[in-house]
Amino acid sequence: MESVSGSPISAAVDVLGDRWTLLILRDIIFDDRRHFRALLTGSREGIASNILADRLVRLLDAGLLTRGTAARGQRARYSLTEAGIRTLPVLVALGDWGLDWRETGDEHRRRQDVLREGGPEFVDELMGELRVRHLDATPTRPGAPGAFERLAAAASDPSPT
Amino acid sequence: MESVSGSPISAAVDVLGDRWTLLILRDIIFDDRRHFRALLTGSREGIASNILADRLVRLLDAGLLTRGTAARGQRARYSLTEAGIRTLPVLVALGDWGLDWRETGDEHRRRQDVLREGGPEFVDELMGELRVRHLDATPTRPGAPGAFERLAAAASDPSPT
Repeated sequence: MESVSGSPISAAVDVLGDRWTLLILRDIIFDDRRHFRALLTGSREGIASNILADRLVRLLDAGLLTRGTAARGQRARYSLTEAGIRTLPVLVALGDWGLDWRETGDEHRRRQDVLREGGPEFVDELMGELRVRHLDATPTRPGAPGAFERLAAAASDPSPT
Repeated sequence: MESVSGSPISAAVDVLGDRWTLLILRDIIFDDRRHFRALLTGSREGIASNILADRLVRLLDAGLLTRGTAARGQRARYSLTEAGIRTLPVLVALGDWGLDWRETGDEHRRRQDVLREGGPEFVDELMGELRVRHLDATPTRPGAPGAFERLAAAASDPSPT
């Protein structure tokens, strides 16, 4: 679909210019929440059930998520598409801005510092891991500590070396 | 103000997780629209007057814009603060995503291509020019063709060299 103005920013904000959409993507990407209930109960901002359901449908329709077929008695699992994975640089840019211009918790500050210091290469590495998790891609460096693992370690360690 | 969750992304989307807010910032930054009327009549997405007024107040309250005192009969002019200028990397990341995952017009595609190829250094240069325009900073390279000038040239030239 071509956006009204043909501007790439306009086309992007048609999908991503929404607070809850961005927070859901953050929770899927950084906290690996893949089920409706995990996204609902784990939400730090206390997302309402109807808003979560609405935004998941929008993300499916926009091609950023797919929904696995659930066997009887099992819950459906959401996966990012490549378009969904490629929203990571937007989230990183938002986090950078938040880190500089708003008060943030120490744990999150350390995580965002690691993201910032790692630069585009680290973001690429994280996207590679998301492809393994969500698109069944083959790990490029099996056994090595993953980028998300290093990110989690930074968040929990008050004095990283 | 600390956001509910203390997450930098959450803190950022409290301000920037809104379609119209992002489009207004885009028009101020890339098209140098500084007055209410220019933002209203120039809006490619047809922003409504009450929405524009609401979002400008929010941007002032959040410290991303300042509003100049208008002399009698003159219109007040909006300026970006440093926090407002530093939203540029978010807009660039959104434009990158839109360029890859949505249909966009040729003119905008060329402009976004220049942004992408220029990388973080070009974005820094653009932010430097915004400081001259909005914060009365001294130009670092007076006389040289500016970064916004090169961006505009790329948008109008169908076959850039």
